[in-house]
Amino acid sequence: MICGIDIGGTNTAIGIVNIKGNILCETSIKTAEYATVNLFVENIALWIQNYCTTSSEPLEGIGIGCPNGNFYTGCMLNAPNMPFKGNVHFIDLFKKYFKNLPIVLTNDANAAAVGEMIYGKAVGLHNFAMITLGTGLGSGFVVNDELIYGYDGLAGELGHTIIIINGRSCACGRKGCLERYVSASGILQTYQEICTEEQCSPLYKGYKELCEAGKKGDPYVLRCFDKTAEILGIALANTAAITGPSHFFLFGGVAQGGSLLLKPTRAYFEKNVLFTSVGNIKIEISGLLNKNAAVLGAAALVQKHILSILTDEQ
Amino acid sequence: MICGIDIGGTNTAIGIVNIKGNILCETSIKTAEYATVNLFVENIALWIQNYCTTSSEPLEGIGIGCPNGNFYTGCMLNAPNMPFKGNVHFIDLFKKYFKNLPIVLTNDANAAAVGEMIYGKAVGLHNFAMITLGTGLGSGFVVNDELIYGYDGLAGELGHTIIIINGRSCACGRKGCLERYVSASGILQTYQEICTEEQCSPLYKGYKELCEAGKKGDPYVLRCFDKTAEILGIALANTAAITGPSHFFLFGGVAQGGSLLLKPTRAYFEKNVLFTSVGNIKIEISGLLNKNAAVLGAAALVQKHILSILTDEQ
Repeated sequence: MICGIDIGGTNTAIGIVNIKGNILCETSIKTAEYATVNLFVENIALWIQNYCTTSSEPLEGIGIGCPNGNFYTGCMLNAPNMPFKGNVHFIDLFKKYFKNLPIVLTNDANAAAVGEMIYGKAVGLHNFAMITLGTGLGSGFVVNDELIYGYDGLAGELGHTIIIINGRSCACGRKGCLERYVSASGILQTYQEICTEEQCSPLYKGYKELCEAGKKGDPYVLRCFDKTAEILGIALANTAAITGPSHFFLFGGVAQGGSLLLKPTRAYFEKNVLFTSVGNIKIEISGLLNKNAAVLGAAALVQKHILSILTDEQ
Repeated sequence: MICGIDIGGTNTAIGIVNIKGNILCETSIKTAEYATVNLFVENIALWIQNYCTTSSEPLEGIGIGCPNGNFYTGCMLNAPNMPFKGNVHFIDLFKKYFKNLPIVLTNDANAAAVGEMIYGKAVGLHNFAMITLGTGLGSGFVVNDELIYGYDGLAGELGHTIIIINGRSCACGRKGCLERYVSASGILQTYQEICTEEQCSPLYKGYKELCEAGKKGDPYVLRCFDKTAEILGIALANTAAITGPSHFFLFGGVAQGGSLLLKPTRAYFEKNVLFTSVGNIKIEISGLLNKNAAVLGAAALVQKHILSILTDEQ
């Protein structure tokens, strides 16, 4: 029995997960309602402790996924959109309540990649990438069966690769980041630009509305998804040339748009990928899309950690 | 005692290397002078066998680096600029002469990365990238102490990531590949474009000439290197966001230009890298620049392979 925690800017989800990936019990709290990070962690710890007193099984570990989570340091570093600023050492904060348990932290997209690897469509795959499309664009890369953490524990930031030199301004302080084009807000901006070009007022303000209009065949919305897919297709083709994944899995609110984005992305990917990979790399919707994947992923992360400790001891 | 072979479109270098990375004996042959690949391999095999009869030490393995070399299949696949076309199964061809020896093949940039890891500046590093700058741009990535081969054995093609959408035409059939800007021929093209803009005739036709003029302060040549460095700096910043290397090592004929390219590349890299990595990632000239690194790398590759077999057996 493992606890998975997905810390987000708006909501934080907590779940108790068994080894088969079934969520036994879960809850969600509003992250910003806590005046301090200590009160936030205390509340989560009390919920977990409360569950433990009602269960016959022992809790074996805690996995945490959060934006800008650093696997090596156990910290969340200057995450935008989070009420807790600076360098937040979540592992130390949780250790106060669960001294003897293994606790592991990484960024939310890495956690989702581990979730896909253990409970989703990536079971048995050795090289794949998880792309989380929502407010931003996150990514987690598995190479030779292992997550890429990089030298500093912060690797896998495909959303902050520059896809258009001197392009749109990004919150990270630079210009042309992929996230500014391929994310809910980026797609809406593209739609607004198309409307400006066509000298008409944008009809849709939210991403869900835009998807509905696209499914009904609105030509400007379809052009907007085509433009988005072109940029995403090129970015994935570039990524394929570097890390050589057999599969890309798309996850998150934007991926729920389904074939509206997926179909043209596959076409632009095939058009732009190096000839040696044409027809060989699959782009699919995550197998965890309708599950609480981030909680599952965070739980899978600590499960993987415990297994690696057991393997090392043998 | 190990044999390293670096197969190139013009020259093929063969060396006998000891465990310390000293080349005991080496030779070079003209690749295109052989009517068939069988004659080419036979000639190399005879040279190696001849050396072995004069040595008291036994030969323990053969490592091969070549363009488009596939680690998994042992083949060179449709390499441009090579006289031998199609899918050339070099491991099978060499096995005819060295039936019981371990023989390993990969692409030349991967071999150079392994060389850097075992004999160069990357000793003890866990995450780094090797960028080979010559006629083209090759790359080899080490993540979690292992080369990234990717699902198909062909990963690490940074030169064929699209850095400028709809940019210069590339021999791979696409447009805007990094290699078309950051390579000897790409840099010369940038210089010619600057001269056209400035309505003057290009003074320098070769890359070495261009470097000499740059060192003497020719303003158009300096602007050309600045432009190249900007593109390379952005590409390395993008790569850093994906694989998180602590170091980039530059290798090859273009890297021999030294600070002319290195200094502005570092500046553009710092300007374009994600804020979490500013000041943390080093770009350096390879430690093997003045050695026969490709031969050393190919030898290091098979040495690493033999060590991993020994470790697995223990």
